[in-house]
Amino acid sequence: MAPHRLQVAVAGLGRMGARHALNILNKTPRAELVAAFSPDQNELKWGKEHLEPYGVTLYDDYKKMLEHKGLEAVVIGTATSVHAEETLQAIEKDLHVLCEKPLSTSVQICQDVVDAAAKKPHLKVMCGFSRRFDDSYQDVARKIEEGAIGRPTVVRSQTCDRQHPDPDFFVQYAAWSGGVFVDMSVHDIDLTLWYFGSNVVPKSISANGVVAILPGLKQHKDYDNAVGIVEFWDGRIAHYYASRMMTHGQEDVTEIIGTEGKLTVNLNPQKNLVNYYSKAGITREVPADYWGRFEPGFVKEANEFTAACLNNTPVPLEFQNAVKAVQIGAWLQEALVSGKQIRFDESGKRLDRANL
Amino acid sequence: MAPHRLQVAVAGLGRMGARHALNILNKTPRAELVAAFSPDQNELKWGKEHLEPYGVTLYDDYKKMLEHKGLEAVVIGTATSVHAEETLQAIEKDLHVLCEKPLSTSVQICQDVVDAAAKKPHLKVMCGFSRRFDDSYQDVARKIEEGAIGRPTVVRSQTCDRQHPDPDFFVQYAAWSGGVFVDMSVHDIDLTLWYFGSNVVPKSISANGVVAILPGLKQHKDYDNAVGIVEFWDGRIAHYYASRMMTHGQEDVTEIIGTEGKLTVNLNPQKNLVNYYSKAGITREVPADYWGRFEPGFVKEANEFTAACLNNTPVPLEFQNAVKAVQIGAWLQEALVSGKQIRFDESGKRLDRANL
Amino acid sequence: MAPHRLQVAVAGLGRMGARHALNILNKTPRAELVAAFSPDQNELKWGKEHLEPYGVTLYDDYKKMLEHKGLEAVVIGTATSVHAEETLQAIEKDLHVLCEKPLSTSVQICQDVVDAAAKKPHLKVMCGFSRRFDDSYQDVARKIEEGAIGRPTVVRSQTCDRQHPDPDFFVQYAAWSGGVFVDMSVHDIDLTLWYFGSNVVPKSISANGVVAILPGLKQHKDYDNAVGIVEFWDGRIAHYYASRMMTHGQEDVTEIIGTEGKLTVNLNPQKNLVNYYSKAGITREVPADYWGRFEPGFVKEANEFTAACLNNTPVPLEFQNAVKAVQIGAWLQEALVSGKQIRFDESGKRLDRANL
Amino acid sequence: MAPHRLQVAVAGLGRMGARHALNILNKTPRAELVAAFSPDQNELKWGKEHLEPYGVTLYDDYKKMLEHKGLEAVVIGTATSVHAEETLQAIEKDLHVLCEKPLSTSVQICQDVVDAAAKKPHLKVMCGFSRRFDDSYQDVARKIEEGAIGRPTVVRSQTCDRQHPDPDFFVQYAAWSGGVFVDMSVHDIDLTLWYFGSNVVPKSISANGVVAILPGLKQHKDYDNAVGIVEFWDGRIAHYYASRMMTHGQEDVTEIIGTEGKLTVNLNPQKNLVNYYSKAGITREVPADYWGRFEPGFVKEANEFTAACLNNTPVPLEFQNAVKAVQIGAWLQEALVSGKQIRFDESGKRLDRANL
Repeated sequence: MAPHRLQVAVAGLGRMGARHALNILNKTPRAELVAAFSPDQNELKWGKEHLEPYGVTLYDDYKKMLEHKGLEAVVIGTATSVHAEETLQAIEKDLHVLCEKPLSTSVQICQDVVDAAAKKPHLKVMCGFSRRFDDSYQDVARKIEEGAIGRPTVVRSQTCDRQHPDPDFFVQYAAWSGGVFVDMSVHDIDLTLWYFGSNVVPKSISANGVVAILPGLKQHKDYDNAVGIVEFWDGRIAHYYASRMMTHGQEDVTEIIGTEGKLTVNLNPQKNLVNYYSKAGITREVPADYWGRFEPGFVKEANEFTAACLNNTPVPLEFQNAVKAVQIGAWLQEALVSGKQIRFDESGKRLDRANL
Repeated sequence: MAPHRLQVAVAGLGRMGARHALNILNKTPRAELVAAFSPDQNELKWGKEHLEPYGVTLYDDYKKMLEHKGLEAVVIGTATSVHAEETLQAIEKDLHVLCEKPLSTSVQICQDVVDAAAKKPHLKVMCGFSRRFDDSYQDVARKIEEGAIGRPTVVRSQTCDRQHPDPDFFVQYAAWSGGVFVDMSVHDIDLTLWYFGSNVVPKSISANGVVAILPGLKQHKDYDNAVGIVEFWDGRIAHYYASRMMTHGQEDVTEIIGTEGKLTVNLNPQKNLVNYYSKAGITREVPADYWGRFEPGFVKEANEFTAACLNNTPVPLEFQNAVKAVQIGAWLQEALVSGKQIRFDESGKRLDRANL
Repeated sequence: MAPHRLQVAVAGLGRMGARHALNILNKTPRAELVAAFSPDQNELKWGKEHLEPYGVTLYDDYKKMLEHKGLEAVVIGTATSVHAEETLQAIEKDLHVLCEKPLSTSVQICQDVVDAAAKKPHLKVMCGFSRRFDDSYQDVARKIEEGAIGRPTVVRSQTCDRQHPDPDFFVQYAAWSGGVFVDMSVHDIDLTLWYFGSNVVPKSISANGVVAILPGLKQHKDYDNAVGIVEFWDGRIAHYYASRMMTHGQEDVTEIIGTEGKLTVNLNPQKNLVNYYSKAGITREVPADYWGRFEPGFVKEANEFTAACLNNTPVPLEFQNAVKAVQIGAWLQEALVSGKQIRFDESGKRLDRANL
Repeated sequence: MAPHRLQVAVAGLGRMGARHALNILNKTPRAELVAAFSPDQNELKWGKEHLEPYGVTLYDDYKKMLEHKGLEAVVIGTATSVHAEETLQAIEKDLHVLCEKPLSTSVQICQDVVDAAAKKPHLKVMCGFSRRFDDSYQDVARKIEEGAIGRPTVVRSQTCDRQHPDPDFFVQYAAWSGGVFVDMSVHDIDLTLWYFGSNVVPKSISANGVVAILPGLKQHKDYDNAVGIVEFWDGRIAHYYASRMMTHGQEDVTEIIGTEGKLTVNLNPQKNLVNYYSKAGITREVPADYWGRFEPGFVKEANEFTAACLNNTPVPLEFQNAVKAVQIGAWLQEALVSGKQIRFDESGKRLDRANL
């Protein structure tokens, strides 16, 4: 008899949710996709075609899906605005949860979710930061651990999206995304916590941005290009760049500079191993989006989450980090919008202007 | 009810067979691994641990495995010497077959297998050339089709293995591999047939080799480094390099030079997207072996073969090419061992020395 | 009769001055090195060996050198602290001047020199920013001019030195260098003025730094790693990174991100065109210092300055920029040391804290 | 008094000669260009404008130029057909000679020149193989010397020109160039002699070519793409590719594979350090011609030749190699045209067909 497979449901069948559903269905051998939920008729129609034939029960009511017989775990890939509520409901039902980042654009709500999970330590609850499962980023972590670069001192990390053909796309998205630092740089911040240690304490945060191609962003207090610096009390610095303006494709780059060496990830983005030589010179193509860059990471994430649930081992990511990353992202966003630097004391307590 | 999944057995659970088995088991959603065969007790032990728990029946008798109830297809990953016989037996039993390359080191036997398959056109029989399923090589095919480089005129292609830590490894392997051009360059030749067209006719074949680090190869008339040129009658040339002497890892590179441009694949091999900056300079690692380079291709191969069986569509690779690639490889090997050029008339008929 | 060659003297025969002297002597066909000055006996000894035999008169008194018969131009490569004074004296003597950057670490003194030069418009006075004469940076300027990237919006630029074997070297240097942003990033700032236009007006300036490997820097209020952001009023941003901590060599990188494309310079530094493949992977070496990267630029600089003097055409660099670049560098340094953001109104007037 | 500068004349003021003249005039400090010769009125006109004003005497009679008072050395950059004769005449006049490669397309004539030079050992006579003076190739030689790759075993080297806008250009050139292997690959052969040692003895030579874009080449028995293999008796192999068909620019690549590592030169050609990111992907430009790639090598060549003459030290290149490289090139060309392999005994004596 085949070993038990984790009984998984996926919430949300939009761009991200559908990808999670297919990963669970086809690329996560120890898991079985048994149910899926979407409030959207078009998404359900997609589910009828791509999931139902494989024995997946579809729901248009999230709560009902949580009642699915034998269900053990939920992967949440809905809109950010409902991440937290759905996670809390799943925890309530004693289900393991893998939730897409961020838990919420509100730091308080993030913390509430983490607190709720902490009360049920038998549950595996994880916020999915896909780069943590990327081979290259994992190789960097290993090399740092081995001392290859001495003490990591400066992180430069950027998340840069390709210009969307529809100029409204990112504008509408900005209405609820939490802003460019919360939505995009949260990945870079999470990497920083990984490589510097999750106990780093910010000393100051500064940020600046411009609206260069998407004037509609202004109504949502967002920017299409933004840079920020986070200084930490233990003598380290991270600086970030987020952009929605690339023409060539997705370009997520990270550099970690240590006292004895440096590591880079994806400094030379490439779609595949082909180079084209023509009158223009030598050209290589670049992945169009984060999926082209990180798909194998998402697959590994689903498999490692499944293994943690089945083996009752710790999930690979510390849940509290999901709050800390959003918190730093939110401060960067505040500094960006206000144009004012934010400062902290050594305990991490924010110094308001009166204390400066 | 879930759609029917192709009932597959894998023959051979050694290095290659085990990988095929795991691919079918875990990464080929439309297939189900129901049986596996190995004549080797160690390999069967591995199967007991990794396959049997998932419902796979193990066999130490290939013929008995072919009788497995409901079996529809066999993936053959045993030693080359039994590829042909096992393929023929599977065809006899009306089973679809995906056989590892080469079908045989004997051109005649390759042809016999192809002929046998031709008599059962309802069967899907395919010889697995994994590079045909690699994203980069497929991108090249697409770009050539679109005319990006004009007429492909010169192919340079190399298959270069990392030095094996055990100096006996390749020597023992050479005893039955058919020689470096049949075993390694057959991939490069197959790419040539892909990009030049499978109807190209050789005009002359020359090759030279050296034994630089593995003196034991001499007893098997093989070489650790070999170069060869195949000139075709329609004004095209392919040249190949095969080596077992790399220190840095696997380095399989292909260039296709056309009248209006050039395409390269893997000119800058890399294990992942990390670069390490140290006193030595800037260093990137390289995949240790073909699996590190081509694993996604093998997965795609298994999925496309499965789809062809289930949908009753043509297999993606023309079976006759498997003969032609081995034939050219064997001629290169002959030219290598004899040190003499081989020539052909325009119909492809070999000119013996008297005709020169 | 050969055309007249510009009669040039070089001040300073230390690391930088000696290189200027040899460039004028050997690689600037339209110039003739007739005199050289150094206050240092060791440097003069070097001059006796390498310059005197070629007809160069050596001086240990700068003012006397200015009296050298027929002298037309002076190249100043002495310590920064005397750049301004020596330039003023040369202008006073009606001599053309090419002065190493920066004119001074004091913005006011820089401006005084520029004002003095403005009063003698027949003189060619230029502050040497070598990157302006680098083929790659010039190619970027040309492509921007042609509209290849739309409107340049974000500049990321870094000047990173290799760790010096003598830990005291940079500490002593910091005593008079003006700090890391004035000494190193002034190049990146100058590039920003080039690509954004020299009329850009800062809106805010923030910076942070750490002392990671050279504790002695603290006494000079300097840092071995520093990052800074300059936001401009016309919707553009520059961010900089300066470091003395690289192990692999010199790494000066610039990215210019526009609304329709991006240009990078030296993202993959390399000493030459060699790659070394070994068990460690694939490695390339990196230039050890700025000379290994920019030597051809210094040669071109000397030739273009000479041509401007002989042809009485404008010098290729706007002199006022030399003040502006130092000004922005000094503000960055102030923000770095104070840890406080500096802000400006739209006219460029600095807003003190009371105005915030 | 300035040290004596070598009094140099340049023969030929065409594409190559003019470059030599300007190098001697402007970039070779220890040499003085005193005279130049061309039989061509247009070239002389160029000389009147670019050389005469700097004190260079122009001649339309080579022999008269050799009588120029005080002349010590001649740089020969005329058409290949007169290289040998002009070299012999200069030797006759007791002048040092730097002659462009090849001395002649006739092996016998090359040898005659070498023999003539051998009779006057006080003269410095050198055939210019510019790659010997290239930083990257010199770095490779140093690394091989240090044992970085063990025993060099396989050389792959290619000389590939950009398609000429005028399709007649290479056809007319082929009339007297000696063919693609003598004209282009002679550089790759010379590198082979450098890295393998000049005492290597060919065992067999094979070659094939196609006429893909320049049908006019057929009348001169030449090809626009050619590949060849040279096998040596000491267990080494070189293989070459020469092409006139590149669209992207000049692409001269060399790989040296040793028993313990590999070195590559220019595997990723680039015009400068700029990358352009656009909708097409990431693009870098490539040098248009050999000058864009090797100019600094030509400058170093002129300086080292000058130093050898003035210091009476050996010239950096062994003169006999110039014969050997042409000899191997001529054999490759013969194998190419005849389509037949050429073989040699261990002493290097050619085996004619009867001996096979």
